[in-house]
Amino acid sequence: MCAKVKNLGVGWRVIMKRFHNTSVKIEDVPAPASRVKVRWLITEETGAPNFAMRQFTVATGGYTPRHTHPWEHEAYILSGRGVVIGEDGEEEEISPGDVVLVPQDEEHQFRNTGEGELKFLCLIPHQKK
Amino acid sequence: MCAKVKNLGVGWRVIMKRFHNTSVKIEDVPAPASRVKVRWLITEETGAPNFAMRQFTVATGGYTPRHTHPWEHEAYILSGRGVVIGEDGEEEEISPGDVVLVPQDEEHQFRNTGEGELKFLCLIPHQKK
Repeated sequence: MCAKVKNLGVGWRVIMKRFHNTSVKIEDVPAPASRVKVRWLITEETGAPNFAMRQFTVATGGYTPRHTHPWEHEAYILSGRGVVIGEDGEEEEISPGDVVLVPQDEEHQFRNTGEGELKFLCLIPHQKK
Repeated sequence: MCAKVKNLGVGWRVIMKRFHNTSVKIEDVPAPASRVKVRWLITEETGAPNFAMRQFTVATGGYTPRHTHPWEHEAYILSGRGVVIGEDGEEEEISPGDVVLVPQDEEHQFRNTGEGELKFLCLIPHQKK
């Protein structure tokens, strides 16, 4: 992690950060997710005013819960193979370089249907407090 | 591109989209950028209410302009090698799997210092109108 601060005359603030994703703690995503881990790469607490970047890793046979929430996802598939399922139940195959936009309030699920890990970025707006 | 719409009783809206990044038009980024191309993968127009996902490709020896703007970047390096330069002029090496947060109003530049293409995602909030 390479975090820097400097004094701008109005107090200290964080400036540009560059770090490898593996330097961020990896956490288990609790059930009803199955075999899913997450790294919160960029958060409000680490200096992002608007939206968070997470990286998910789904082991073979694992899946995120089939769920819905009032904010959108923007996802980019980094490695592995799987499907994303929208609220019509239709499965869309996903593989590296694919982009997925899940609008707010749409039920969705990611499943690893491949033989290796399924890894993807998933960005969401910060939740209003 | 896999865009779908459905009628929710309050009018038609776009639902989940899944597509490969290469299905999106690639555009030249004008000077003072050098040898930089961009794909706007997810935008306000395509259904994202809060922030945009772009994918940049910088050819060998190319660079983004050294510039600043009042919104943050969240970047993830997909392939290639290069440096990102913050406002202190210090170069940070970047390679695949690296994450970069550039806060608003900080001068910054990405340069390809490797032998292949430098490719990265770069997400920004929509500009207020």
